Amino acid sequence: MAKALVLEEARRLSLRDIDLADDLGAEDVRIDFDTVWICGSDVHYYTHGKIGPFVVNAPMVLGHEASGVVSEIGPEVTGLAVGARVCMEPGIPNTRSKASKLGVYNVDPSVRFWATPPVHGCLTPSGVHPAAFTFKLPDHVSFAEGAMVEPFAIGMQAAARARIKPGDVALVTGAGPIGIMVALAALAGGCAKVYIADLVEDKLAVAARYDNIEPILIPRDDAASVLRDATEGWGADVVFECAGAAASIRTALEAVAPAGCVVWVGMPVDPVPVDIVLAQSKEIRMETVFRYANMYDRAIALIASGKVDLKPLISETFAFADSIAAFDRAVEARPTDVKIQIKLEHA
Amino acid sequence: MAKALVLEEARRLSLRDIDLADDLGAEDVRIDFDTVWICGSDVHYYTHGKIGPFVVNAPMVLGHEASGVVSEIGPEVTGLAVGARVCMEPGIPNTRSKASKLGVYNVDPSVRFWATPPVHGCLTPSGVHPAAFTFKLPDHVSFAEGAMVEPFAIGMQAAARARIKPGDVALVTGAGPIGIMVALAALAGGCAKVYIADLVEDKLAVAARYDNIEPILIPRDDAASVLRDATEGWGADVVFECAGAAASIRTALEAVAPAGCVVWVGMPVDPVPVDIVLAQSKEIRMETVFRYANMYDRAIALIASGKVDLKPLISETFAFADSIAAFDRAVEARPTDVKIQIKLEHA
Amino acid sequence: MAKALVLEEARRLSLRDIDLADDLGAEDVRIDFDTVWICGSDVHYYTHGKIGPFVVNAPMVLGHEASGVVSEIGPEVTGLAVGARVCMEPGIPNTRSKASKLGVYNVDPSVRFWATPPVHGCLTPSGVHPAAFTFKLPDHVSFAEGAMVEPFAIGMQAAARARIKPGDVALVTGAGPIGIMVALAALAGGCAKVYIADLVEDKLAVAARYDNIEPILIPRDDAASVLRDATEGWGADVVFECAGAAASIRTALEAVAPAGCVVWVGMPVDPVPVDIVLAQSKEIRMETVFRYANMYDRAIALIASGKVDLKPLISETFAFADSIAAFDRAVEARPTDVKIQIKLEHA
Amino acid sequence: MAKALVLEEARRLSLRDIDLADDLGAEDVRIDFDTVWICGSDVHYYTHGKIGPFVVNAPMVLGHEASGVVSEIGPEVTGLAVGARVCMEPGIPNTRSKASKLGVYNVDPSVRFWATPPVHGCLTPSGVHPAAFTFKLPDHVSFAEGAMVEPFAIGMQAAARARIKPGDVALVTGAGPIGIMVALAALAGGCAKVYIADLVEDKLAVAARYDNIEPILIPRDDAASVLRDATEGWGADVVFECAGAAASIRTALEAVAPAGCVVWVGMPVDPVPVDIVLAQSKEIRMETVFRYANMYDRAIALIASGKVDLKPLISETFAFADSIAAFDRAVEARPTDVKIQIKLEHA
Repeated sequence: MAKALVLEEARRLSLRDIDLADDLGAEDVRIDFDTVWICGSDVHYYTHGKIGPFVVNAPMVLGHEASGVVSEIGPEVTGLAVGARVCMEPGIPNTRSKASKLGVYNVDPSVRFWATPPVHGCLTPSGVHPAAFTFKLPDHVSFAEGAMVEPFAIGMQAAARARIKPGDVALVTGAGPIGIMVALAALAGGCAKVYIADLVEDKLAVAARYDNIEPILIPRDDAASVLRDATEGWGADVVFECAGAAASIRTALEAVAPAGCVVWVGMPVDPVPVDIVLAQSKEIRMETVFRYANMYDRAIALIASGKVDLKPLISETFAFADSIAAFDRAVEARPTDVKIQIKLEHA
Repeated sequence: MAKALVLEEARRLSLRDIDLADDLGAEDVRIDFDTVWICGSDVHYYTHGKIGPFVVNAPMVLGHEASGVVSEIGPEVTGLAVGARVCMEPGIPNTRSKASKLGVYNVDPSVRFWATPPVHGCLTPSGVHPAAFTFKLPDHVSFAEGAMVEPFAIGMQAAARARIKPGDVALVTGAGPIGIMVALAALAGGCAKVYIADLVEDKLAVAARYDNIEPILIPRDDAASVLRDATEGWGADVVFECAGAAASIRTALEAVAPAGCVVWVGMPVDPVPVDIVLAQSKEIRMETVFRYANMYDRAIALIASGKVDLKPLISETFAFADSIAAFDRAVEARPTDVKIQIKLEHA
Repeated sequence: MAKALVLEEARRLSLRDIDLADDLGAEDVRIDFDTVWICGSDVHYYTHGKIGPFVVNAPMVLGHEASGVVSEIGPEVTGLAVGARVCMEPGIPNTRSKASKLGVYNVDPSVRFWATPPVHGCLTPSGVHPAAFTFKLPDHVSFAEGAMVEPFAIGMQAAARARIKPGDVALVTGAGPIGIMVALAALAGGCAKVYIADLVEDKLAVAARYDNIEPILIPRDDAASVLRDATEGWGADVVFECAGAAASIRTALEAVAPAGCVVWVGMPVDPVPVDIVLAQSKEIRMETVFRYANMYDRAIALIASGKVDLKPLISETFAFADSIAAFDRAVEARPTDVKIQIKLEHA
Repeated sequence: MAKALVLEEARRLSLRDIDLADDLGAEDVRIDFDTVWICGSDVHYYTHGKIGPFVVNAPMVLGHEASGVVSEIGPEVTGLAVGARVCMEPGIPNTRSKASKLGVYNVDPSVRFWATPPVHGCLTPSGVHPAAFTFKLPDHVSFAEGAMVEPFAIGMQAAARARIKPGDVALVTGAGPIGIMVALAALAGGCAKVYIADLVEDKLAVAARYDNIEPILIPRDDAASVLRDATEGWGADVVFECAGAAASIRTALEAVAPAGCVVWVGMPVDPVPVDIVLAQSKEIRMETVFRYANMYDRAIALIASGKVDLKPLISETFAFADSIAAFDRAVEARPTDVKIQIKLEHA
């Protein structure tokens, strides 16, 4: 039995004891969790009790963006020792599946992902995880940064799939947490300049703190026009669509350059009209993103080098005992809030 | 002044004399045209007087799928001699534009394309063309096949952009002329098997004459199910959507495998709902096609080798004097008709 | 204890009983082997007792190109049943390694590969193998073809890494078994024409039986010149170097086109002088091949479709009881021999 | 007649009047040159009178890394006006060649390149150039930086061909001007960290001024070991070989990770032994670089954004009147010298 933040059903959280399986397998490590960031999906399960086909039918522990310290290792673990500061990929595939053998284990249908029903998350003092999906943090990378590797890895996946060429100019539509993560990854990943468009000035202000991320306030400014003006009429080499709205999907296709790339990151609630003929007239490529694969070590390397600074995105910190308050703050969705973290205490 | 098939306005064709500029530049060749295939776009200009933003505001000569014989060469032409049997890329870019320098001259906005207003086509005895966009035909490739390189090049562009891996399984939605061209290019380009889906049995019958092209008659059979059954549940490595219909666009996303590719070839009249979340859940790539670039020599090589046989697609032949009858036959759109050709005579 | 073809030490083979571990794991299958082809590496271990760093220090069962019938399945196996006709990837990686997670499990340093010291091969009546690396054969694909999937997969890997574009013209240097496998894969994988060069006319004769594989007898003909003549001076889009000789390595760089690709398949005994400046002057890409990954299903699909016909490569068949004679025949290296198979009998 | 720095023959320079063709074509601009950097190839022509097959058989003006101001435009020029501050790609291809149509105009055999016999360079007050290969400089990019776009474009080409993934770790062998340009491009182009190895401490000191470029002094430290230690044994994702020496070519293959990439930038004088089997055992990709194509706008964008700072590489400035002294200084090859510039004066 362990204390955990349990989503009992939509709109009802408890901080209570729960029985969690935690047998340590031969290739597993046990981790004392230190920091857990709240993700939009955690909040969505809290407010709606489901995301698409994933429905909370039984009490489920929330949380999947975490860092911590290794407290025990399985007998076949190499490369990790007790005391190691780590962060974890929360999705565990069957590594013998066809998708995994192809290197795209993120699309293996059998992935078990923390805090996705019926799998429990990590808002609890400790848990067991495969060593192969557990990554060491350099000394100068904090637990707060380490736990933020998870959402940043989505930005990394988007940047990697775009196949950025050095000196590309990019547009990101949507300046929420994922939009900012994508912008940072794109810039570190080779873009000369990243424009980011949003309707909310406070969100843009967070993004605009970074060099070479240029805010576009819509509808005051038209993103496609701004990009054309910035590129002698050519357009954005890459557009990362992170808002999932019909208008921004249209903007993405208007703003992208001939032979450019649009990466669909935002998830529209329903099928959205897409102007395929406009896409064809520029012969663009379109990529999609589903979580990430093989991005944790790269993400940590960029954070450790200082090329990516996630610290300005820390908006507020709550103690584990105040987890429910932390979620209620996240539900508020203040435009100045980017990321809210919960710190666990260990004796 | 030369005799030509002139589209005077929507629904009105004349076979009459017209004054066509035909100065031979230093890097140009003059060609006596032999064979011209009728394309769906020719027919659409005839029946509607426009395609999207391209409107027939003045009499225009039709035809852009052609082969012929070089009758004169400019002083700086190398590699082509009088008497050479050739076919021609009908789109001429500014080769110094940014798009051309990048190797994607097909998306150069300044391309001048035969039989696209206000540019005249080639249904006339002879014309002038840049040598750089004129390609020699091997002796054993007929004029009929040579003129069909143009639509086949679209299939080649689709196959090239898909980045087929040897042994891929593909689905083509839509068994019209372009669907068949795509299927042939995909098969020659490395697929083990190509499934092709259509509502019309007669169209499928043409495609099914080829080894390893497997017809799917919808709605009797569901294309996504057929592909799953054929691939142990994995799906099509590549889907070429060539119908441009809302239902086939949905099918494309359902039938494609995780980490697979959908190539959007068909051109829907209006923006169509696309289930971006479904695409993301498999993390697919989507490519678009706009005509072709750098495909003529490859297309000719595959035809010359016998790996691609276009001869079964020849449905009917008309003399130049009967060009209007040829277009009226094309307007009929008989399901058993794939391609209709017009032969020009030279003294 | 099982009867097996055991390499006791260099130049000494026995057909004798040996104790082979064969515990069936939860995700394993047991296979009654039917056909085993002799590979050049088997022969090399026989004649030299080692290949590079891999030394036969203890008796080792030979054989790794095999097909057979599933006789027992582990409790967690899905997708394979007793009686299934199958072939097997002989290299088993740690699927949780970094290389495996990236989709390149063939370069995982912990791969255990049949008949590579100290791992036993499959020239014995039955063995245990992970289901994830065991592949069903369609009914009309014979055991002989199924066992030949292994060497063909090397050709597939070479073709895949070349990233053939439809209609490419390729050159293969070296018409041994691997050269022919590569030529077949390249042709099925999208090439319009594959030239193959060798010093031995008998070897070329086997290759030349196939449509669109064109033999070049050296030194009578110069491969680079032949390719230039065939491509209006441009050169081969792809060169697959399969001979591993200094002269053919030079030829590869001379014959390849600007911006083309050379795939290094052949393994020179020692470091060989490479003209890097010549490679740079055409800005070519060079790929290397190490066995294969994710190629078995694709290889089987191409064989099953009839696009690739391996049957002409069957040179001779021996019974299991005559295995040593089979190896002595392989040591002869007759130029007309491509592949020699050993058939196992089951009650 | 114009004053120019003329290489009369090996080891003999004159600053004298020479007759240079300078007709302004319809798509050309005339440029008053401002800054010209001395390149290693200029120095090599000065000291040896040839580079490989390119021999100075007649007096030739040196210089090809230049910036300046547009003083006249041809009648069909758009996008550039008199007074524009610009830099120029010194290689002019036939834009209608097969290579150019493919987007690889750098490997077009008909390229005419400044200061490559028999083509004159730009160490003269003004010259004529195609507008399509002339690029505007943003106001805050100096002429010194603008003229350095040329060597930086080589670094960009190397980085682009490597297809860096965000967060890659790279090794550069050789800390000369090109090695440093490559390191800067690789870092801006997505690497988390770039190690650079050289035998000369003074050269490393220049490189080490940059964040995330880590010097390796050889033979004191072994580059392959350093990279393994930095990557948990995995190796460098990308190695850029910029020294062209047998030892560094060996190091490149030792240091690169499984499935990694080696980019051959350095040009060995003679063919060098390459351990192809070592390359195969990791199944690496190898890319080569020949100048650059489509890199100027990207290079300028990265300099303009501040992501790449070339100013620390300015070692010394000479007036045009002192051009010969500038070349004699360059011949000294001081280890602390990176780039030496010549400034032209205009009334």
